[in-house]
Amino acid sequence: MIDLEGKLADSFRCKTLKWLSEEYHEMNGTQYDVLDHMPTPLEFSRLVHIARPVLIKESTVPEVDDKCAWSKEWISEKMGNNKISVAVTPNGRADAVTTGPDGKLFFAEPHTQRMTVSSFLDTLSSDTEGHEIDNQSWEVHYLQSQNGNLFSSRYFDMSGEEDPSEFEALREYIPSDVSWCSDALDRTPDAVNLWIGDERSVTSIHSDPYENIYTVIRGAKHFTLLPPTEGWCLKERRYPHGTYARSSSSSALELVPSLPSVPLVRWSSVTDPTAPGALPSEAHPIHVTVKAGETLYLPAGWWHHVRQEGFTVAVNYWYDMEGRGMSWVWMNFLRGTEEPPLGNDEGAGAKAGGQIES
Amino acid sequence: MIDLEGKLADSFRCKTLKWLSEEYHEMNGTQYDVLDHMPTPLEFSRLVHIARPVLIKESTVPEVDDKCAWSKEWISEKMGNNKISVAVTPNGRADAVTTGPDGKLFFAEPHTQRMTVSSFLDTLSSDTEGHEIDNQSWEVHYLQSQNGNLFSSRYFDMSGEEDPSEFEALREYIPSDVSWCSDALDRTPDAVNLWIGDERSVTSIHSDPYENIYTVIRGAKHFTLLPPTEGWCLKERRYPHGTYARSSSSSALELVPSLPSVPLVRWSSVTDPTAPGALPSEAHPIHVTVKAGETLYLPAGWWHHVRQEGFTVAVNYWYDMEGRGMSWVWMNFLRGTEEPPLGNDEGAGAKAGGQIES
Repeated sequence: MIDLEGKLADSFRCKTLKWLSEEYHEMNGTQYDVLDHMPTPLEFSRLVHIARPVLIKESTVPEVDDKCAWSKEWISEKMGNNKISVAVTPNGRADAVTTGPDGKLFFAEPHTQRMTVSSFLDTLSSDTEGHEIDNQSWEVHYLQSQNGNLFSSRYFDMSGEEDPSEFEALREYIPSDVSWCSDALDRTPDAVNLWIGDERSVTSIHSDPYENIYTVIRGAKHFTLLPPTEGWCLKERRYPHGTYARSSSSSALELVPSLPSVPLVRWSSVTDPTAPGALPSEAHPIHVTVKAGETLYLPAGWWHHVRQEGFTVAVNYWYDMEGRGMSWVWMNFLRGTEEPPLGNDEGAGAKAGGQIES
Repeated sequence: MIDLEGKLADSFRCKTLKWLSEEYHEMNGTQYDVLDHMPTPLEFSRLVHIARPVLIKESTVPEVDDKCAWSKEWISEKMGNNKISVAVTPNGRADAVTTGPDGKLFFAEPHTQRMTVSSFLDTLSSDTEGHEIDNQSWEVHYLQSQNGNLFSSRYFDMSGEEDPSEFEALREYIPSDVSWCSDALDRTPDAVNLWIGDERSVTSIHSDPYENIYTVIRGAKHFTLLPPTEGWCLKERRYPHGTYARSSSSSALELVPSLPSVPLVRWSSVTDPTAPGALPSEAHPIHVTVKAGETLYLPAGWWHHVRQEGFTVAVNYWYDMEGRGMSWVWMNFLRGTEEPPLGNDEGAGAKAGGQIES
């Protein structure tokens, strides 16, 4: 029996989302603001209300009076033999949908490996200047521990609690907040993260409920952005969870499916939105390259896919988005109030035109 | 034949709007902020992003060193014999849905009468202190010419063009803009209006695409507010247009239907949202009384019904809302992308539970 009512509800929902994304695109286009200097708190408050990406041609990280600052050598020297947590994958796709055992699709979390900064930096494929080097690692390492690895919300908590960081030694070079952003939003960051990797690491397209201030210190990041209204173009599905692991310290990484009790992960089934034909014609991706010394304001709820150019060091500041008013409600509405279909269900995928490049 | 698809689309749309208004209410409740003092531009910018009503216990209009300032006598003296345009209706309901000839419902515009300020003030039902007086007029007069009667956008246009005002003599007492609002929104007002009336004039529920700063100078205004998400509770319908007029200068006002070529007016069919049972249980009206010396921030898109207490003088500043970003798109979505049913169509009214108290 055909569920006519369900089908019509689907089609109405689809029409509604298309209408909203068309209207939004008509009013806003695909251009983005470029600022020569940091905004004032008031200017930034206005930009948060508009909630469009903004490229700022300045760094949130003060210049260090040392030509070698933020080179591999400089970072290694500052960090010494302290161990850090590094994400390791066989393919550079941490937190992404990947084909696992038996050809089934999984949402794959990386293997976390503890190592010294210098041994981590040795795995990267290019030197500080971005020239390719003969690295020893077939696996892809990415420093992407997004738990506030530089400063977490505990740091700003006045209770005096400690906020230990693996990157304690780098804290003096990185401000704990972005003052114009903290002033505009009237809050301190929820997490400040350091990111270090190379062009082999790619961040799959997703969105966060955070206002995001993203500064590139070395290298460059290529962002592919979609507004919250175009989330429907990304065909979210539910995937079983898995984590890369090795059976012994010398063996290769394998994707290990999590126990069935681990909830399915909702994720876009479009693995590379920059690939031709990956997105429907109704999507209007915005491509922004953030070079060393530049900062991107990525508004809460915007979908982003990120590639890197050679040896890349970046820092980002996540601020909780405003929960009062409309923004939160709209974001949830655009994500859909119902669970998306299963990512491994052929029927569901075909019905909605889902696609996966594995 | 039953239009099953149309019916299901209606029901889905209805469900969507109900979901949005429920979520919005859950996140925001019905409380509103009360500020003791004017916000800074930055504070106000944040409030605009949240887009909730705010009552400010301060006036945008500086105090005048004269105990009689803004009394009937004081206003009359300042204005002299200059004539002003006053809205006149038989029932105090200008710009509202009213029963017209043959019992048909109309959107009724008031009769505009030119008169001196002192003869206008004589028609009001109470004296400066709000005590009832024996006024000569059976008709209800309301100064509500919302065309920027104090300052229009032309005033801020630096081209040197003139912006004549009927209230030129009062301009020196009323700032042409609200500096913290102009700074926050980075624009000058679109219109600044003076409002003078009594408790017999009521403003029917409607919404404007403007950020609104509303200061009461004398008397008090009782606002009944609904967020943009609850617009569906107001059952907008389309009504034929009419204007009050008299056949001779001494005859009574009659509602004259406009020519059929005048487009139908989309307006709420709920004439008194404060009446018991006028709104469905899903509506969460907010009642805010703005007293003399207080200011209301009424965010763009909020529905408002306004009553007055005795002799009331007020000034409001309309600022264009931000067109970039989501706000405009959402507002249009919540208003509905399709024309509402006809207000005089029994079938349509009954189907949607429309109601009119005439």
